[in-house]
Amino acid sequence: MRVVVLAGGYGGAKLSHGVALAAEAREPAPELTVIVNTGDDLELHGLLVCPDLDTVLYTLAGLANEETGWGVRDETWSAAEMLARYGAPTWFRLGDRDFGTHIMRMHRLRTGARLTTVEAELVEALGVRARLLPMSDDRVRTELRIDEGWLAFQDYFVRRHHEDAVHEIRFTGIDSARPTPEVLAAIADAERILFAPSNPFVSIGTILALPGVVEALAAARAPIVAVSPLIGGAAVRGPADRMFVSLGGEASALGVGRHYVERYPGLLDGLVIDEVDAGQADALRALGLAVRVAPTLMLTTEHRRRLALEVLAFADSLSG
Amino acid sequence: MRVVVLAGGYGGAKLSHGVALAAEAREPAPELTVIVNTGDDLELHGLLVCPDLDTVLYTLAGLANEETGWGVRDETWSAAEMLARYGAPTWFRLGDRDFGTHIMRMHRLRTGARLTTVEAELVEALGVRARLLPMSDDRVRTELRIDEGWLAFQDYFVRRHHEDAVHEIRFTGIDSARPTPEVLAAIADAERILFAPSNPFVSIGTILALPGVVEALAAARAPIVAVSPLIGGAAVRGPADRMFVSLGGEASALGVGRHYVERYPGLLDGLVIDEVDAGQADALRALGLAVRVAPTLMLTTEHRRRLALEVLAFADSLSG
Repeated sequence: MRVVVLAGGYGGAKLSHGVALAAEAREPAPELTVIVNTGDDLELHGLLVCPDLDTVLYTLAGLANEETGWGVRDETWSAAEMLARYGAPTWFRLGDRDFGTHIMRMHRLRTGARLTTVEAELVEALGVRARLLPMSDDRVRTELRIDEGWLAFQDYFVRRHHEDAVHEIRFTGIDSARPTPEVLAAIADAERILFAPSNPFVSIGTILALPGVVEALAAARAPIVAVSPLIGGAAVRGPADRMFVSLGGEASALGVGRHYVERYPGLLDGLVIDEVDAGQADALRALGLAVRVAPTLMLTTEHRRRLALEVLAFADSLSG
Repeated sequence: MRVVVLAGGYGGAKLSHGVALAAEAREPAPELTVIVNTGDDLELHGLLVCPDLDTVLYTLAGLANEETGWGVRDETWSAAEMLARYGAPTWFRLGDRDFGTHIMRMHRLRTGARLTTVEAELVEALGVRARLLPMSDDRVRTELRIDEGWLAFQDYFVRRHHEDAVHEIRFTGIDSARPTPEVLAAIADAERILFAPSNPFVSIGTILALPGVVEALAAARAPIVAVSPLIGGAAVRGPADRMFVSLGGEASALGVGRHYVERYPGLLDGLVIDEVDAGQADALRALGLAVRVAPTLMLTTEHRRRLALEVLAFADSLSG
């Protein structure tokens, strides 16, 4: 069964991993395609760094640093130390294994390969049995307006620890960017489509802002199910909860449902919310959404697998 | 006193380091400029690697791995491990700290900086009190003809462990390459010019093959003194001794002297040879060279300093 996950980094990697792990328990086994946000990508030291793609890649490959939630485990930091001696910026930390990825990626891109092709090569090399699709081969830059003005995403997220209130979001380059043929084909061919518990504004929202993606999703045969990234009104990680407030919504599972229903009318078939938010299920159903209540916190690998099975079962119930 | 050293990697770094260390013992203190061969440079993983420049840089900065004779000490190898997983070539080993240098260099070059400028930045950042000048900002590629045909230098030197007999050498790109203005100015302004005990064919020879360098050296006021890279007919490191044989010379201090005198008539004023080769001093003098016999093996830092002092004293005697 062809399962497509729209994903950012942290929550996207975890749910994608769960779907990959669920392969053993489901018949037919899920064939996983992850469509990943690239609006957070940045150029650093002359290399293209793709944090969301890398987090999904490393997680699916079993190489992720589960403690930090980013980067590769058993990492060393020698290249960054040397770069610091040379006066290079140090606020975005890159480990040596991680540098290996960025060096290889940049090398391939400079030879003219598409990002989509390069990621397929990395996935293949690391023995990952899933497709990992950048949302676009064109450069899109997520930028956020805070009190002092516009910031590049990683300036906001890493350098300033996502502490600023975000008043506005824009995706520079999005108008001329296109989803890849692989992305459009994956959506059209999908049997189940999942929105990972990633940030609805700057992860899922970036993918959905690409011209043609919402239309492709609306035309898809597969049911579309989202997993709320908010549990009890709080984001497991990152600033999604505060963004709901500062951008004029409500930091709750209900707020997540409203966000998707109001911004993308008719797109979402169902929403999975956490058990602690069960009391909001009826209000969400009143918006026209099917609702499934489940434990959504993915602290362990087994949690990931169970949530993926639950989400897929929910999508099954909405299918056909 | 302005001292210019023409250098390859291994022997060039050691003698240059000796000159830098000799600063304390000489009045006026040497102001060191090292003109470095770039014909051995290679592109690897999309990065420009400059083995000779790096060896001199790391040695002068006190960062060199003295055991291996290349790379940085206290090195880690994580990026290379990751690159190997991605299928990148592994025959030319690059450590993580070393990668830091190559990443920074490539980043700066891609922004349009000259190699000369970039190296000056690296030197400054590492607190090295010497000038490190690539012989050219233009790409020159040293290639060697072996039985099977032409090889790029590092293919011959590292990948095939310089085991092949070399029948011919060429410097691809040299006709259109130019020494930098900094190189020409350093030669013109020099008060002492030293040819390091580097390979006369593929280290010193590459620099001398650059259009205009021999003319600039001939016009220089400074005495020019070479240090023989052969001790008792053997190279301390590398294939220089075998090259003397396969290219039609003699692997000896005398062979080194003949090489310089025959290829570059009148250029060299003096040659420093090792004590074990003292018996060849007269034959060398018969070629018109001044000769100084000294311990030339630089096993320790103190050896480097002493040899530099000896070579500079020899050059003093040939000056004015």
